[in-house]
Amino acid sequence: MAGGDEVKEVRNQQVLARDYISAIPEESDMYLNRSSTIKLRVPDEDDCQEAMLLKNLYLSCDPYMRGVKHSDATSSTDQDRIVFFATDKPIVGYGVSKVVDSKHPEFKAGDLVWGITKWEEYTLIKNTQSFFKINHTDVPLSYYTGILGMPGMTAYAGFYEVCNPKKGEYVYVSSAFGAVGQLVGQFAKLMGCYVVGSAGSQEKVDILKNKFGFDEAFNYKEEADLAAALKRYFPQGIDIYFENVGGKMLDAVLLNMRLHGRIAVCGMISQYNFEQHQGVTNLMHLIYKRVRMEGFFVFDFYHLYPKFLDLVVPYIKQGNITYVEDIVEGLENGPASLVRLFSGRNAGKAVVVVARD
Amino acid sequence: MAGGDEVKEVRNQQVLARDYISAIPEESDMYLNRSSTIKLRVPDEDDCQEAMLLKNLYLSCDPYMRGVKHSDATSSTDQDRIVFFATDKPIVGYGVSKVVDSKHPEFKAGDLVWGITKWEEYTLIKNTQSFFKINHTDVPLSYYTGILGMPGMTAYAGFYEVCNPKKGEYVYVSSAFGAVGQLVGQFAKLMGCYVVGSAGSQEKVDILKNKFGFDEAFNYKEEADLAAALKRYFPQGIDIYFENVGGKMLDAVLLNMRLHGRIAVCGMISQYNFEQHQGVTNLMHLIYKRVRMEGFFVFDFYHLYPKFLDLVVPYIKQGNITYVEDIVEGLENGPASLVRLFSGRNAGKAVVVVARD
Repeated sequence: MAGGDEVKEVRNQQVLARDYISAIPEESDMYLNRSSTIKLRVPDEDDCQEAMLLKNLYLSCDPYMRGVKHSDATSSTDQDRIVFFATDKPIVGYGVSKVVDSKHPEFKAGDLVWGITKWEEYTLIKNTQSFFKINHTDVPLSYYTGILGMPGMTAYAGFYEVCNPKKGEYVYVSSAFGAVGQLVGQFAKLMGCYVVGSAGSQEKVDILKNKFGFDEAFNYKEEADLAAALKRYFPQGIDIYFENVGGKMLDAVLLNMRLHGRIAVCGMISQYNFEQHQGVTNLMHLIYKRVRMEGFFVFDFYHLYPKFLDLVVPYIKQGNITYVEDIVEGLENGPASLVRLFSGRNAGKAVVVVARD
Repeated sequence: MAGGDEVKEVRNQQVLARDYISAIPEESDMYLNRSSTIKLRVPDEDDCQEAMLLKNLYLSCDPYMRGVKHSDATSSTDQDRIVFFATDKPIVGYGVSKVVDSKHPEFKAGDLVWGITKWEEYTLIKNTQSFFKINHTDVPLSYYTGILGMPGMTAYAGFYEVCNPKKGEYVYVSSAFGAVGQLVGQFAKLMGCYVVGSAGSQEKVDILKNKFGFDEAFNYKEEADLAAALKRYFPQGIDIYFENVGGKMLDAVLLNMRLHGRIAVCGMISQYNFEQHQGVTNLMHLIYKRVRMEGFFVFDFYHLYPKFLDLVVPYIKQGNITYVEDIVEGLENGPASLVRLFSGRNAGKAVVVVARD
């Protein structure tokens, strides 16, 4: 368009981070900026030649959205880690958005997309690499923050690709009530595995068993001896462990692994809030049982996204997978939702509604 | 033969274990029995229908020959762990032997074999499953306790099969002076990798660099900060870690792994003498760098033994691999040799000569 066109400028509320966050974010680490505005067009600037302008609809709260330790941040050579919290910048996270304007050939105004956006009403995306266009709109759009988005792909990649599961195997999922864990458990059941999950409250345990179809579930907080608990639920041992916890839980699992078992390391949430991490002492069992333990990032598997949709969308439509969301309305309630996630008080995939269309 | 035949009965000196050994064996945990005798024929008993009687020539001292903790022994469901020390029984270990008599169709008197035998002059083997016939006799027979035996196959399986190495990759070997470590380093060099090893004395470090052709080597006892040492030797990071040590060394390695790195867990010798194992705290780096860490036992790879010989025998004959033995003469000196191995004072593959033919 010609430079003289009048471009609509609108309010653009934002949730920003305060100073450096050391580990688990608290509400006071974030603040709302009500006065920001934005022009609803991709600027004519050199670095915006493939940019798009998004209206954010649903934002995702995820357990890896935490501060990065200074030591990690400086010692790491890994380019792929995202900085979620930067002082006086909007929080960064996954979301579902509608394209308002685009200079990118693959995205056009009106398209629905999901990817890494920001906690604000509108976001200018200069690097569109993390975005997928949403083609199946006959499921709730918010699902693309969870079961059909990054957490879903994480469960899929970790379970099917990393763990190489076989029918009849014994599968243990920690943080089983989390967005990823509940899907892993359901994928495993659909494959014909025996599945046990752990979670942090009796209510969650009941839902795992009665709603998500786990064969068994237990409240890890009630178990004085985790290794004994696992021995009780897996007298034959564990073939596959989907690791979300780390520390003492991993140690207990190592004692209970079966020959040629596999551990997909998705996260270690027990370690996030320790400056000095809990030591894992039973790694010798990797040898005794010839166990493969493998860390993975969902980024490495996004080329499988179409294959994933082919599997999961029919499961959703046919009601083979149960999916629960914990939805809060309004950007201003985002920080509370994120903090609740870390305290384990969320009741499903935590989603913040910024706008419904 | 008819039952009335006269069978030669000979002296059969033995090294026996005293009471239960908790971790690292000491000389006082073993004793010599000079008064035992044996008939040099496989008995006509039901459980000896495929047995063979061996004259032991060379016995192997290996770092996994240690006591098993009661808790491990009782909690384990793994059938493959060998009991090396049982009270008032001969020590069990790998060796090279000559078949004196055999009822097994695949072994006949005069054959040379290697496998799991006992610390005595003659051994009746009822289950011959662990034995390989020795066909290449144009190399020293004692090599079948090391480079051409179980340690060689361990290096081969761990490096080639578990680590999936590629030319130009960065390889770190701990306990690099050990029987397995020195072979892994040389295999890696022959493949065109960059190889750094660590050992526990300056003398060993010098030999690693000057004799075994490691690109670099260092004395871990002189490094106050192992992570910094590894950073110095691997500014680009480590693609492959051949793990023999565990504990703090593994923690330092985890901080220095490269993207998609692989850790073959062969042993964790630092952990053997701790009732309370050292905790490993940096496992989150398995995720950051998408590292695969895999425990293995050589038993699972013995079907590759012919392929292994095809690779390694020519290397030995052409002088492409350097191999050093620390040979002691006489069964009675076996306990001292084994104990020296655990203190790191051996000067090569520890071998005990019982008889030379």
